[in-house]
Amino acid sequence: MASSPIRKLTPLADEAKSRGIKIYHLNIGQPDIKTPSKGLEALRKIDRTVLEYSPSQGFRSLREKISDYYRRCGMEFTPDEITVTSGASEAVLFSFLACMDPGDELITTEPTYANYLAFADVAGVRVRTLKTHIEDGFALPQVEHFEELITDRTRAILICNPNNPSGTLYTAAEMRMLADIVRKHDLYLFSDEVYREFVYDGKEYLSAGHFEEIAENVVLIDSFSKRYSECGIRVGALITKNRSITQGVLKLCQARLSPPLLGQIVAEASCGEDSSYLENVIREYDQRRKILLKAMSGIPGVVTSTPHGAFYAMAALPVDDAEKFCAWCLRDFQYEGESVMLAPANGFYITPGLGTNQVRIAYVLKSEDLERAVFLLGKALGQYPGRKY
Amino acid sequence: MASSPIRKLTPLADEAKSRGIKIYHLNIGQPDIKTPSKGLEALRKIDRTVLEYSPSQGFRSLREKISDYYRRCGMEFTPDEITVTSGASEAVLFSFLACMDPGDELITTEPTYANYLAFADVAGVRVRTLKTHIEDGFALPQVEHFEELITDRTRAILICNPNNPSGTLYTAAEMRMLADIVRKHDLYLFSDEVYREFVYDGKEYLSAGHFEEIAENVVLIDSFSKRYSECGIRVGALITKNRSITQGVLKLCQARLSPPLLGQIVAEASCGEDSSYLENVIREYDQRRKILLKAMSGIPGVVTSTPHGAFYAMAALPVDDAEKFCAWCLRDFQYEGESVMLAPANGFYITPGLGTNQVRIAYVLKSEDLERAVFLLGKALGQYPGRKY
Repeated sequence: MASSPIRKLTPLADEAKSRGIKIYHLNIGQPDIKTPSKGLEALRKIDRTVLEYSPSQGFRSLREKISDYYRRCGMEFTPDEITVTSGASEAVLFSFLACMDPGDELITTEPTYANYLAFADVAGVRVRTLKTHIEDGFALPQVEHFEELITDRTRAILICNPNNPSGTLYTAAEMRMLADIVRKHDLYLFSDEVYREFVYDGKEYLSAGHFEEIAENVVLIDSFSKRYSECGIRVGALITKNRSITQGVLKLCQARLSPPLLGQIVAEASCGEDSSYLENVIREYDQRRKILLKAMSGIPGVVTSTPHGAFYAMAALPVDDAEKFCAWCLRDFQYEGESVMLAPANGFYITPGLGTNQVRIAYVLKSEDLERAVFLLGKALGQYPGRKY
Repeated sequence: MASSPIRKLTPLADEAKSRGIKIYHLNIGQPDIKTPSKGLEALRKIDRTVLEYSPSQGFRSLREKISDYYRRCGMEFTPDEITVTSGASEAVLFSFLACMDPGDELITTEPTYANYLAFADVAGVRVRTLKTHIEDGFALPQVEHFEELITDRTRAILICNPNNPSGTLYTAAEMRMLADIVRKHDLYLFSDEVYREFVYDGKEYLSAGHFEEIAENVVLIDSFSKRYSECGIRVGALITKNRSITQGVLKLCQARLSPPLLGQIVAEASCGEDSSYLENVIREYDQRRKILLKAMSGIPGVVTSTPHGAFYAMAALPVDDAEKFCAWCLRDFQYEGESVMLAPANGFYITPGLGTNQVRIAYVLKSEDLERAVFLLGKALGQYPGRKY
């Protein structure tokens, strides 16, 4: 598992806490934003006496709400084209299983969300990666780099947009290029868009679902987790106009019987939240992003990418090895009884040796904690024995 | 998908209902029993403001409750030996993925729970089956029949005990035989025990977890769905003393991030329900079982197995083809504006041609509805043009 560096650090963080050290977590994507009150109220008002199975494809009433949401995003999907899943995770796994056979190949970029690899492994699919770079904000590679990787076993391209771990938002030109590639080579385009709302600097968001000419190729992966800060309800969705994919996915859904009943009730109620909720959340993240970038720019030797989406940034640190540095922060460093935990980026790269001096920072802490965490990071870099320059 | 016969019948049932026909459902395993009030109250009392991810292995507090429950069942499992899953379905899938490689073989009996086949397919595992027969109550085959199927690719035996679809409860001698086989051939024993409580006629229940000498071989599949009539919460568990299995499963759990938060809250609270809850539920099912068996025995030409566990019975009907008969009941039959829906058993058999005159009956309706449903079944058999004798 590529994301194991974070897991190896967790016992160190626990140990530090047991010594009374306060740890600021920049390593995780668990937002502290409140779940919509309408979602929480719906739970308290449940008057069912039997918590029964829900339909395998998800409640129709929820799928109608998702359909309405997509219309507001400029995309037309009927409730029949929407499948409710146990989080985006299940949508990723089921799209892999429904669209690819063992031995098939999938192209994605690196750094990447590590759990994709676990699901590809379950599906017996070989993942081939294109490197993206902190220097140009992890932009997509040129078309010829994609085409170099395409073989007769290539079935799909997978993107995450806005991107986890890099925070990169793909431009209209990049999306256009992808659309042309998948059409030319008749590939599926799996587009994980769970951070769709989190777009900053007035940038335009283009979904893979906006390209009508590749409607049969596109599988959108969606989730309520980040949009409504309800990661625990485990409700995601798989959305496609390709009926044979929906049918293949439905067979898998039937085998696992049904998605979570209670999560669907919360998700459906959350859809009724006033639009000001999301506006406030996005404004809050944008403010945190600006605080993070300003604070990071004050640390000598650190290069931080400017994320235009999601709530992650990547930073190159002036250290010998970011994983060692992160462990050192937890084991050997403290300042006024406090330290910081970051995600070493080697867990997001597949090619060995890439990103060894990088970390991923999740800006999901409130502003004053974020400032303090970056202050601690600066102090730690000043004292770290493996500092490079 | 082997269970597709039921799915093919669903539109016919919907169509019958649209004609105003009342349909009694003997086809599904969705209990009408009330969820424990403590579980429902816990939902209403949730005072969280953020519905966050829960730990990948499940809340420790819930795993402690499950550990306590197993102690009461005469089995010692620590919370670390328990993994909370999204229903028993995910426990089945993850145990297959963690214990077997593509091309490996799994032995089970038929008739079988059809969804096992879908998960075996995902894992790339070949399922080999031993036939069991309505004439002897679907007893396990003799040891030599198991050994005939064992090859160098055989990795595991899968049982469901008490059995879905047959309602069969395995005897101490049958469980002893299985323990000897898995020990002799060093196989895993996957034991789906989600109906563990539902045992009748004063029979003794022996879990695969009761055999200490095969503790490293056994993976127990468990669920809150049937025990507490809360199928919709999607909370199950995978339980094993084999640490390498737990570690392999944990990697899969981490990839899908976490099991349902809200379901775990309900499940944990349900564990605190008074023991009279389950006693009453079991008494209720037992009463329904007796009503079913008595009523079925009054229909000429029908042979019904006597189930000692779960809430299913298998019946051989005097018809040309049970699937055709079930469709006819929905499309062409009604008595006083009512009809009945059954599950054709061919969906539970893997070998083509087996069980074609059998149906599975779920006795999850309240007694008066159950009596009426069987009455309607008798009337339908009397009128069915494809009646055999």
